[in-house]
Amino acid sequence: MSVTDANTGILFGGDYNPEQWSEDVWVDDIRLMKQAGVNTASVGIFAWSSIEPEEGRYEFGWLDRIIELLHANDIGVILATPTASPPPWFSKAHPEALPTTHDGIRLVHGSRDTYNPAAPAYRTAAAGVARALAERYGTHPAIRAWHLHNEYGTVSYGELVDAEFRTWLLARYGDLATLNRVWHTAFWSQGYAAWEEILAPQQTQYLPNPTQVLDFKRFSADLLLACYQEQIDTVRELSDAPITTNFILPPWLHFDHWDFADASDFVSIDHYVDAAGAEGAAHTAFGADQARSFARGKPWLLMEQAANTTQVGKRILAKVPGQVLANSVQHVARGAFGILFFQWRAPYSGAEFFHSTMVPHAGEDTRVFREVTQLGALLGRMGELVAEPSAAGAGAAAAAVNRPRVAIAWDADAWWAAETAGLPSDGFSFHRSARRVHRALWFLGISADFVKLDHELSRYDVVLVPSQLMVTDAQAESLRRFVWHGGHAVVWYFSGTFDADLHIIPGGYSGAFADMLGVRIEELLPMAPGETALLDDGRTASEWSERIELRGADALVRFADGGQNGETRAQAAGLPAITRNAVGDGSATYVSTELDDSGLAAVLTDVLAMAHVEPDAPGAGDGLEAVRRYAGDDSYLFLVNHSDRPRETEATGTDILSGTSYAGRLTLGPGDMVVLREPAR
Amino acid sequence: MSVTDANTGILFGGDYNPEQWSEDVWVDDIRLMKQAGVNTASVGIFAWSSIEPEEGRYEFGWLDRIIELLHANDIGVILATPTASPPPWFSKAHPEALPTTHDGIRLVHGSRDTYNPAAPAYRTAAAGVARALAERYGTHPAIRAWHLHNEYGTVSYGELVDAEFRTWLLARYGDLATLNRVWHTAFWSQGYAAWEEILAPQQTQYLPNPTQVLDFKRFSADLLLACYQEQIDTVRELSDAPITTNFILPPWLHFDHWDFADASDFVSIDHYVDAAGAEGAAHTAFGADQARSFARGKPWLLMEQAANTTQVGKRILAKVPGQVLANSVQHVARGAFGILFFQWRAPYSGAEFFHSTMVPHAGEDTRVFREVTQLGALLGRMGELVAEPSAAGAGAAAAAVNRPRVAIAWDADAWWAAETAGLPSDGFSFHRSARRVHRALWFLGISADFVKLDHELSRYDVVLVPSQLMVTDAQAESLRRFVWHGGHAVVWYFSGTFDADLHIIPGGYSGAFADMLGVRIEELLPMAPGETALLDDGRTASEWSERIELRGADALVRFADGGQNGETRAQAAGLPAITRNAVGDGSATYVSTELDDSGLAAVLTDVLAMAHVEPDAPGAGDGLEAVRRYAGDDSYLFLVNHSDRPRETEATGTDILSGTSYAGRLTLGPGDMVVLREPAR
Amino acid sequence: MSVTDANTGILFGGDYNPEQWSEDVWVDDIRLMKQAGVNTASVGIFAWSSIEPEEGRYEFGWLDRIIELLHANDIGVILATPTASPPPWFSKAHPEALPTTHDGIRLVHGSRDTYNPAAPAYRTAAAGVARALAERYGTHPAIRAWHLHNEYGTVSYGELVDAEFRTWLLARYGDLATLNRVWHTAFWSQGYAAWEEILAPQQTQYLPNPTQVLDFKRFSADLLLACYQEQIDTVRELSDAPITTNFILPPWLHFDHWDFADASDFVSIDHYVDAAGAEGAAHTAFGADQARSFARGKPWLLMEQAANTTQVGKRILAKVPGQVLANSVQHVARGAFGILFFQWRAPYSGAEFFHSTMVPHAGEDTRVFREVTQLGALLGRMGELVAEPSAAGAGAAAAAVNRPRVAIAWDADAWWAAETAGLPSDGFSFHRSARRVHRALWFLGISADFVKLDHELSRYDVVLVPSQLMVTDAQAESLRRFVWHGGHAVVWYFSGTFDADLHIIPGGYSGAFADMLGVRIEELLPMAPGETALLDDGRTASEWSERIELRGADALVRFADGGQNGETRAQAAGLPAITRNAVGDGSATYVSTELDDSGLAAVLTDVLAMAHVEPDAPGAGDGLEAVRRYAGDDSYLFLVNHSDRPRETEATGTDILSGTSYAGRLTLGPGDMVVLREPAR
Repeated sequence: MSVTDANTGILFGGDYNPEQWSEDVWVDDIRLMKQAGVNTASVGIFAWSSIEPEEGRYEFGWLDRIIELLHANDIGVILATPTASPPPWFSKAHPEALPTTHDGIRLVHGSRDTYNPAAPAYRTAAAGVARALAERYGTHPAIRAWHLHNEYGTVSYGELVDAEFRTWLLARYGDLATLNRVWHTAFWSQGYAAWEEILAPQQTQYLPNPTQVLDFKRFSADLLLACYQEQIDTVRELSDAPITTNFILPPWLHFDHWDFADASDFVSIDHYVDAAGAEGAAHTAFGADQARSFARGKPWLLMEQAANTTQVGKRILAKVPGQVLANSVQHVARGAFGILFFQWRAPYSGAEFFHSTMVPHAGEDTRVFREVTQLGALLGRMGELVAEPSAAGAGAAAAAVNRPRVAIAWDADAWWAAETAGLPSDGFSFHRSARRVHRALWFLGISADFVKLDHELSRYDVVLVPSQLMVTDAQAESLRRFVWHGGHAVVWYFSGTFDADLHIIPGGYSGAFADMLGVRIEELLPMAPGETALLDDGRTASEWSERIELRGADALVRFADGGQNGETRAQAAGLPAITRNAVGDGSATYVSTELDDSGLAAVLTDVLAMAHVEPDAPGAGDGLEAVRRYAGDDSYLFLVNHSDRPRETEATGTDILSGTSYAGRLTLGPGDMVVLREPAR
Repeated sequence: MSVTDANTGILFGGDYNPEQWSEDVWVDDIRLMKQAGVNTASVGIFAWSSIEPEEGRYEFGWLDRIIELLHANDIGVILATPTASPPPWFSKAHPEALPTTHDGIRLVHGSRDTYNPAAPAYRTAAAGVARALAERYGTHPAIRAWHLHNEYGTVSYGELVDAEFRTWLLARYGDLATLNRVWHTAFWSQGYAAWEEILAPQQTQYLPNPTQVLDFKRFSADLLLACYQEQIDTVRELSDAPITTNFILPPWLHFDHWDFADASDFVSIDHYVDAAGAEGAAHTAFGADQARSFARGKPWLLMEQAANTTQVGKRILAKVPGQVLANSVQHVARGAFGILFFQWRAPYSGAEFFHSTMVPHAGEDTRVFREVTQLGALLGRMGELVAEPSAAGAGAAAAAVNRPRVAIAWDADAWWAAETAGLPSDGFSFHRSARRVHRALWFLGISADFVKLDHELSRYDVVLVPSQLMVTDAQAESLRRFVWHGGHAVVWYFSGTFDADLHIIPGGYSGAFADMLGVRIEELLPMAPGETALLDDGRTASEWSERIELRGADALVRFADGGQNGETRAQAAGLPAITRNAVGDGSATYVSTELDDSGLAAVLTDVLAMAHVEPDAPGAGDGLEAVRRYAGDDSYLFLVNHSDRPRETEATGTDILSGTSYAGRLTLGPGDMVVLREPAR
Repeated sequence: MSVTDANTGILFGGDYNPEQWSEDVWVDDIRLMKQAGVNTASVGIFAWSSIEPEEGRYEFGWLDRIIELLHANDIGVILATPTASPPPWFSKAHPEALPTTHDGIRLVHGSRDTYNPAAPAYRTAAAGVARALAERYGTHPAIRAWHLHNEYGTVSYGELVDAEFRTWLLARYGDLATLNRVWHTAFWSQGYAAWEEILAPQQTQYLPNPTQVLDFKRFSADLLLACYQEQIDTVRELSDAPITTNFILPPWLHFDHWDFADASDFVSIDHYVDAAGAEGAAHTAFGADQARSFARGKPWLLMEQAANTTQVGKRILAKVPGQVLANSVQHVARGAFGILFFQWRAPYSGAEFFHSTMVPHAGEDTRVFREVTQLGALLGRMGELVAEPSAAGAGAAAAAVNRPRVAIAWDADAWWAAETAGLPSDGFSFHRSARRVHRALWFLGISADFVKLDHELSRYDVVLVPSQLMVTDAQAESLRRFVWHGGHAVVWYFSGTFDADLHIIPGGYSGAFADMLGVRIEELLPMAPGETALLDDGRTASEWSERIELRGADALVRFADGGQNGETRAQAAGLPAITRNAVGDGSATYVSTELDDSGLAAVLTDVLAMAHVEPDAPGAGDGLEAVRRYAGDDSYLFLVNHSDRPRETEATGTDILSGTSYAGRLTLGPGDMVVLREPAR
C-alpha cells in the first residue's frame, strides 16, 4: 500500500475537476499536464451531483473516460469520495440532514459542506456513494490512493446532534452523577436529573457551561471521525489502495489530527501560506512540521496549496515569482512525498473562480503556468527521495524523514480549552502561542516536531510547552519524567492550569507543572491590551504577568516595572518573569509573560545551548533554511535562502537539482535552493 | 399627461401627511404653505391604515376633505398609493406576507415596508387599495400625478419567494441543463435534477453560487417591477394623471432604474445630499444626472430631499444656511421640474421624528422655514423653464433638458456583480468607482449623462467606463463601435472581466474590451488595503495593479515601483498603469489602477481635450458650477458658486432670478447663483 | 425587621454556595470565615436544581445542615430563592418558559437566567420553590434576611410576552384610540384596529415605533416587578425576615430601581468597580450614591462586589493592593450597613471560574485572602455605625445616613428614551451624561443624591439635570418650583425635549424647561464624532450645539468658533454655550454642549458657590474623599485619600479604626483612611 515508488517520483499535480469541463478541454488538459510534468490528479472531490445526479442513479461514464485518459497518459489518480457536498436532491429529500447553526437556524443547500454529520440519512447516502465508487474503481490500476471526503470540519446542532451527543456522553461518563460532577452542574442550577435533559450547547442566555462546550467539541470531532471511519471501512472492503483525507490546518480545528492520522494510511494536508518571503517560509515550515508530526514522522502528502495567490484578509494577493518553488521545496525537505495544488485549471464560474490554479484564466502563456512547469521539472529531479517503496508505507516502522531534537507541545483539547469563554484574558490563544514559538525556532534555524506531551518524548532534548492551559495527568507526568531524565523543558504561562475535565487544579495556577517548575503562582495579573512592561534584562513583555512565589526555582529575569497601566499599577514590578528549576538531570524553565521577539529568541537560544541543539547547517536561521531529510540510509540536506541577501554556510554533497557537488563553504543568493545528497556517514 | 405647465411653474412642496394631524393643524398648514409658495403636496404615502383601517372598510372622509382644501388653495396633489406599509390587520391576517430575512427569520409588523412582494395576499391587497383610490380620485382636478408605493426596495426570502424565483428561472433558462451550465453547478455538487430543488440563496454553509445570487437580485428587481406594473395597470384604468414612483438612489439598489423609468410616465427621485459645500454639490449633481439619465434626458421630479439636515454616519447634522437653495437650483439646472421635500411638517412622534422637514419642530419662526420660504420665491421666478406643456410629457420626443457630451457607464447588473463574494479585492465597488469618476468630472466643470453601454452612444464624444466588471456582448460591441467611429473611451480596471452570466471571459481579464484596448491582462495584482504605489509621472496609485501585456496600445504612465507591501514585493514595478490604443477614428484609454485625485483629473483632462469637450462657461469647475438647460427653443445657463471664494466667468443673458442682464465678465461671490436666459443662438 | 443591630455590626461576608462543595470543604469554610471575621453568608442563589432536583421533590438535607453549621458559628444567613436559574427538568417540561430573543430565537437551557418572565409555568414554579423555602426556613433564627431571585433583568419576547404586553397596554391606555394617538400610529400605517394586532417590538424591517419600544421596556420592567412582588407575597406569608433583591446597577438597566426599592424592605446592590485609584473611587461613589438614593436615604446593603479582580473590557485585571479596603470604606461612608462579596470560595469549574472570590484558587496563603481578613477586622471596628436598631428598618422614618445638598436627576424612563433609534446623535447617553456630572462633582469633593425630578427637591440647594431628554409635566413643574423658591438648577442639553409619551414638546427643543431657562432652542446642531469647538472662555466643547435664542437668560459663555467640521461650517459660532436665567429666588443654568472637564468643573464650581455648598471637610476633592454619615444623633466623618500624594484637611473627632483623636489639621498619606466620630454639635 505505498503511494510512491521509484517510478512515480515525487507526486506532482492537483485537484482536477473534469466534470466541470467539456471533453475537448480534457485533451488540452492532458497536453498541459504532460508539459508541466504532472503525474497525479485528484479527481471526484465535490462531484457527487455529477456521479449520482438522482438518488441511486449513477453516471460513471464521464469518470470512466477521464480515468482511462489519465491512466493512458501515466497520470495517477487519487480518487475522492464526493461526500463533502451532498447534491440538491439529497438536501431536498432529507432537510434534517442540513446543518443547523449555533443559534438554531437550519441552513439551506447552495454551497459546500451542507450536511449534518449526525444525520442517518447523510451517513447512509455517503456510504452508498463511497461503496459505488469503490466497487467500480477499487482495483483500477490508475487509482494511486483514496481521498475520502474533503476537509472534514462541519459542526452542526439540532435534535439529531443532541441525541448523538447524549449517547457519546453516556459512553464517556456512564452515569449522570459523574457527568454532573465533571460539568460542575451545581453551578447555576444545571444539575441533570435525566439524560434527556442534556442538549448541545446552542445559543443560551449568558455564559455556557465550559466543560459542556469542551465536551461538545470533543464529541463533534469524534462524530467526524466516525464519518471518516465508516467510509474507510466501506472502501477498504473493495480496494487495497492507500486511504487518506486532506486535513485543513489551523486556524480551523474541528478534530484531533492524530486521531485522524492514525485512521489513515498516510497523512495529507492542505496548506495555504499566508505571507511571502521569510515570514511565508516560517508559516510553510509550521504546516509541514505539523503534517509530519501528525504522520508520526513518516512521509506525507501536500494535497493542496496555491500556485499563484495568497489570501490576506479579504484580498487575494498574487504570490511573488519563485515563492511557490521555495515553499514546495520546503515541504519536500520536511517530509512531503508529493506536491499537489488546488486546483488544476481556473474555472470561469462558481464560488471560487478566483481561487488559485495551476493553469490560470489567462491560460498557458502566463508567468504562473511557466512557474508551475518549472516546479514540475524541479520535483522531477528529486525522485530518489521517494524511491524506497516503504517510504509512505502505512505499516512500515520507517525512521522519521526528519529527526528534530526539539518538540513543541500540541493538543486539540488544549486548543478548544483556550476557546473557553470567561478566561482571564481575551488575548489568549494556544494556537498563536504555539505558532509564535515555532516561528522563533525557525528564525534560529531549528526544526521541531509537534507532540502530545504523553507521546514518547525521549527522542527529544528540548520540549517546549507554549501555554497549553489544559493537560492530562499523564501528560504532566510524561513531561516531568522527560526532565528528570535530562530533558530541558520550557513552559509558557497558564500552561497546566486545567486538568482534562477543564477544572482548575487547586493550590495555584499552572498547578500541573508547579512542582516541576519550582514555583507557586498565587495570582494572575493579566495586562491590558497594548500594555507593555520593562524586564530587568532591558527587554519588554506584554499580555500577562503573575504573582509568582519561587519554591526552588531561580528567577532568571524579573519585571523592572509592572508593566501595568494606571488600572493595575505595576503590581508585577520585581516579580519573576522567567524562572528555571533544576530537576533530576534536566531543567524546567518557566516563562510567565509574553516576551518580545528578542526575549523569546534569547530564552530559546539559552535552552538550545544547554541541550547542545544546533541547526542542520552552520549559519542557518534568519531566513536561511537548512533541513536534513532521511530516505532509507541516505540523508539529504536542503538549503533554501528565503532572505533578501546572499548567505553562507558549509555543506558537503551533490545537489540533486543541479548535479553540482559541494564540499565546504557554500554561498546561496536570495531565492537559491540546493538539495545535497550527503556522503554516507 | 403633463405634470407642469405655464400655470404650475416649478413644483414646490413636499410629502404631506394630514392623517397624522388634527384638522385644525391643516388650516395652519395651508396658511404656511401659501406663505412659503408651496404649490404641490404629496399625500397618502404610508397612509394605508388610515385609508383602510380594517379589511375592505375605507375611510375617505379625511382624504376628501384635505384634497378639497388643498385644491381650493391651488395646491396640486400628487396622490400616493400607501402600499409600502401594510396595516397591522393585514400582517396579522397574512403572516406569510411578512418579509423573511436571508437567515430565514420572519420579521414582525412594526415598521414600514413589512411586506413580502411575492405574497399573493399582499399583491391582492395592494391592488385593492390602489383601485379604491383611483376610483375615488382618478379624475379629481386636484390630482396632478400618481405616486405609487414608496421607494421600492424590499427583498424577501421564504417559500413563496422560492416558488416565484423558480418560475422566473424557468422563463429565463427554459430547461435545467441550461441553468446548470450558466450557474456552473458542477462546481461543489450543485447540479439540479428537478426545478423543485432550486431555492433562493438564503444563508448557507459557506460561499454561495455567484450566478444564483446575481439571478436572485435580478429576480427580486423584476418582482418589484411586477408589483409596480400591477399598480400602474390598476390606476391607469381609472385615471389619466401621470404616474411615477420615487426612486431611492444608490447606495441602495434593488432594481434597474431604467426598467422602472420606462414603466413610469415621468421619473422622480429622492436625493439626500451627504455633505455640505462643493462636495455636497458634487453629490447633488451625481443624483440629478442619474435622475435625468434614467428619464432618458427628459425633465424629472425631485420627490424628496431634506430641508434642514444631513445624515452623516449616525448623526443628523444641520445643513448650512443656503445649502438647500444651492442644491435645489442645481437640481433644476440638471432637469428637475419640481423640488419637493420629505416632509412638510415635523412630527412630534413616530420613528422619523428627527427626519428633516420644511416646518421644523420649532415652527415658522426659524431659520429653516425662512429659508424654505426664500426657496419658494426663488423657484417661483423660474416658471418659464417648465412652461412648455410637453416638458415632462411621457410620450413626447422632447430634446434632453441637458446635453452633455460625456457619458458614464451605469448598469444595475454590474453593481450587483460587484457585490459577489470572493472577488480578488474587498475594496472593489462599481458604485464608488462611478461616483468617483463623476465627481472628478464635476470638479473639472463638466456634466455627464449615465448610460448603459448598449444605449445609443453616438450623441457623446467621451464615454467613461468606471470598473464595470460585467458587460454583455452587445455592450462591448456598442462601445467598440463608438470608439471606431471617433469616440474616446476610458475604461477602468476590471471592467469587462465577466459576461452577462457572470462567467469570466477566457484569455485574460477585462476580456470583453481587451482587443479594443490593445492589451492582454495576464494576472491580477491587487494591492493590500492602504498600500500606495508610485507612478512614473510622480503621482500615486492604490488598490489595484495588473500584469499587462501591450498588444498594440501605448503605455502612457507606468508604475515606478510596484506599490506592493512586503507581501507582494513590488510586482507591478515597470508595468503599464495607463495605456491608450488608437481604434478607428477614436481612442481607447485603459486605467489599470486606482489613480489619486490629481491623476484622475489628469487622465480626464487629457481625454476631454482630445474630444474638445469644454465646460458650459469659462472658468467653471473647482466648485463653480455651470450648467446649460434647454426648454423648447430657449437655453438657460445656470451658474452657482459652491466654493468659498469669488469666482469669475463669462456669460450673456438675463438672470431670471434677479432680472439683471449680463454680457461678458461676471463675478459670483460664495453662494451666489444666477440663471441666465440666453439670447437665441 | 431590622437586619443589623448592636450585635451584628457591619455585615461582612458573601455569596456562599455549599451545594457546589463536598461537606468536608464546609468545615474549612467555617474555619476561614471565622478567621476573616465573616458574619454573613448569602446562601441558595442559583441552587434550584440542588434544592428541587426533580419537579416537586425537594432536597433540604444539605441546606438544613449548612444553615445549622453557619448558625452554630454565629454566621447569619441571607437566604436566597434560586429562581434566577430554573433547572434542566423545568426547561425541558416547559420550553415556552425559555426566553426568546428579539429576533425570535428561543434560547436553550445551559446558562443562567434561562426563563421567560411572562410564562405561567415559570411563575408557578418560582412561587413553588419560594414557598417551600419559606415554609422550611421562614422562622429559622439563622435567617437574617431574604434575597429573592438574583439580578432581575431578563427580557423575553414571543407569544406569551405579546399577550402580557397587550394586557399591560390595555390597562395603561384603556382604548385603542388612545394607544394609537400616543404611539402616533398614523405614521407608517401602524394604526391598530384590534388589540390582538399589537406585538412586542421584535425584529422588523426598519426603524421601530419609538413609543412602542419605550412602552415595551416599561412593560418588561413591570413584568419583572410582578415576578418580584409574587415572591415577596409568598415569602411574607411565612416569614418576618426583611426581604430584598440585589440590584444590578447601570449600564444594565431593565427596571425602575425606585419601584423595586419601594417593594423591598431594604435596598441591596451589586457593584463592580471598573477602575483603580481615584477613577475607581469615583465609580464606587456613583454606585453607593445610587444605592442610597434608591433606598431614599436609608442604609443599604452591598450584596456583591469583587474581592480581587476588575473586569476591564474582555480582561480580568487584578485589583491593586488596598483597593478593596478603600472602596469598601467608601460604601460604608455612603450608607452601606454591610459589605458582601461574590463569592466566598473560588470554584474550580463552571462558567465563572475566574470571577472574583474572597478565598482564591490558590487558597488562604495569598495576598487576596490576607486583605479580605484585614477588611473583616476594619469593618469589625465600625459596628457602632449600625448599632441603632432602626438603621435599616423598613418602616422607620430615619433621617438619611448622608445628607447631600446636591441632587442629580435620574430616571429609568429617560434612560430608555435615550436608547431610542433615530435620535440626532448616536453619541447621546443619559447614563454617561449623569455619570459624568457625578464624577465631576466627586472630584470637587461634593457628594450628591440621585432623584426623580418629581421627588421632593426642597432639601437640596442645587439640582443638576444631565441631559434627561424625557420629563413628565410633574417633573418639569417640580424643578420650576424648586428654582422659584431659591434653588439653583443646571440643565444639560436636550433635557426636557420629550414628554412622557416620548413626544417632542412643540415650539423648540428642551421645551419642558425652556421658559424656566429663558431660552428658545430653534435648531439642533449636533457635532460630528471627534469634532471640538472653541468657547470664548478658551475651553473646548464637543458633541452638541444648538441655535439658541435668549429669551430672558444671559449668555455666560459663547462659542468662539462653531466647532463644526467642513460639513457643517461653524454654525454655532457666536451662539450661547452656557446661559443663566434668574427665576424667583433661584437660578436656572443651561449647558448646551458637552463641556470639557475643566469647563464642567467651572460651571459646577460657579453654581455650588452661588448655593454655598462646600465639601464635608476642607481640601476634599481631587481624590481626597470626605463624607459625613449620620447614625442616630451621631455623625461620622469618613476621610479616604485615593490620590497618589499626601493630603491635608481639618477635622475633629476620634478615629474609630485606630482610636486616635484629631482636632484641627490632619494629613493623610496615599491610601490612608480615618473614620472620625465627631463631637456632638
